[in-house]
Amino acid sequence: MGGSFALAMKKAGLVRRVVGYSKSPSTTETARRMGVIDLAAESALLAVSGSDIVLLAVPVAATESTLKAIRHLIHSDVLLMDVGSTKGDVVDAARRALGKQLPTFVPAHPIAGKESAGVQHADANLYQGRQVILTPLEQTRPELVQRATDVWSALGCQVLKMAPHNHDAAFAAVSHLPHLLAYAYFNAVARQPSGRDFLSLAGSGFRDFTRIAASDPTIWRDILIANKQELLTQTQKFRESLDAMEQAIQKGDTSGLEAMIRQASEGRGQWQLSSPPTPPKSK
Amino acid sequence: MGGSFALAMKKAGLVRRVVGYSKSPSTTETARRMGVIDLAAESALLAVSGSDIVLLAVPVAATESTLKAIRHLIHSDVLLMDVGSTKGDVVDAARRALGKQLPTFVPAHPIAGKESAGVQHADANLYQGRQVILTPLEQTRPELVQRATDVWSALGCQVLKMAPHNHDAAFAAVSHLPHLLAYAYFNAVARQPSGRDFLSLAGSGFRDFTRIAASDPTIWRDILIANKQELLTQTQKFRESLDAMEQAIQKGDTSGLEAMIRQASEGRGQWQLSSPPTPPKSK
Repeated sequence: MGGSFALAMKKAGLVRRVVGYSKSPSTTETARRMGVIDLAAESALLAVSGSDIVLLAVPVAATESTLKAIRHLIHSDVLLMDVGSTKGDVVDAARRALGKQLPTFVPAHPIAGKESAGVQHADANLYQGRQVILTPLEQTRPELVQRATDVWSALGCQVLKMAPHNHDAAFAAVSHLPHLLAYAYFNAVARQPSGRDFLSLAGSGFRDFTRIAASDPTIWRDILIANKQELLTQTQKFRESLDAMEQAIQKGDTSGLEAMIRQASEGRGQWQLSSPPTPPKSK
Repeated sequence: MGGSFALAMKKAGLVRRVVGYSKSPSTTETARRMGVIDLAAESALLAVSGSDIVLLAVPVAATESTLKAIRHLIHSDVLLMDVGSTKGDVVDAARRALGKQLPTFVPAHPIAGKESAGVQHADANLYQGRQVILTPLEQTRPELVQRATDVWSALGCQVLKMAPHNHDAAFAAVSHLPHLLAYAYFNAVARQPSGRDFLSLAGSGFRDFTRIAASDPTIWRDILIANKQELLTQTQKFRESLDAMEQAIQKGDTSGLEAMIRQASEGRGQWQLSSPPTPPKSK
């Protein structure tokens, strides 16, 4: 996410110089060799020094410690953003870590996933035509929210603003729960004595249904735990829906089962991936 | 499925003339206008009359009545096949319906799905590079099993033979359960008061995960009920897998949760859609 942001910012002509830092020296080295960053910093704190825009791209559980490591060099006119898939916990971490620098923080979640994490998959066009959600706090400086909006718009994003809680409820439903179900489903099949034989017979429906089960374990472990409350609420709703269908199957209630399938089939048939038309011009 | 088979057989030069019958006159008319069939029969029985190969492409629950309607004109050297996604119930239906014509029946399941059913989506290349499962009975004439193998091979399929029960166990796991989960999941999200807002935020992971939830209600109602026993066995295994992950999330057991996600992620990362190399030459 961070690498793609750097490339996209360069492509849009919005930055002169990108300074990067990663805990892993090989990541930093790859980023420099690929031209994703211009300069490798020796610490997160040094990477922040003198920057106008700071983008934090770390697993959500590492947000607080990273913010603590950099807060001393965050000035009040720096635009500080993250890209975390959960927002309630990130906002809480920011409140604890940032103190008087809190108003510089504009929590952001670009809806632009890849199963393949890592700077080697950085893509200057990753954000083109995607949505990004900003969840500013009451303390956030309005001009920084506007600047964040302008930056993401210039990268081709449609920018939406939501309260952190609403964000987390929505993404528990449309992203975190499907990941959990895909992981649980894949393991349920693969662990059976005949699992390997079964998997060799799976077709394109299985392929698409389980694509997100290949997603990064560390990132998703953190997301599922960070958004525990909303996720378990959604899991409960899913279980009720599954129970109803299972009961219809058990009883041989063909018309009841068909009605449920038809509702899903028609709803999904009408659903479309939202793709904003041409991105609005940035100021 | 039937229309694609007709087009593929014509393309491979394996048939001189295709006679079609559908309960719906508009389907028959479309099939003739598209050149999928050469002749529209006035009944299923008349469609079978004089044919060398008969392919039944009906929802699995309609197998028995359709076989009963045609059995009087099935000669002992006719190759009779279906394309149903379940095999145990189809075989039972054939035993009840076919009597002394049972040896002509070679139950078949081509693994080539489309969400869009109907003759207007018929595709001469649908079966190219796909698998087809044959589940012959002890009574099935071996030369007809060989002929079925040759026909599907000539259409570009890899042909596998399995017992009906093993087929149904495998497809409950890799096809029927994912459909059930996708339907249940889509409804769980869409029925919530904020469901519409949630769906507008869903991204490409959601798109792929729910693609099969758009599948045909009638066909899938029949499949889920026809394979009830195996499906409910698989649902139980899925529930155990989901329970374990939910408990880890509930307890904040990050390492336990990560281990489960990692198992799925690595397994899915290694999995590949099986695509046979060049199809074997037919005799």
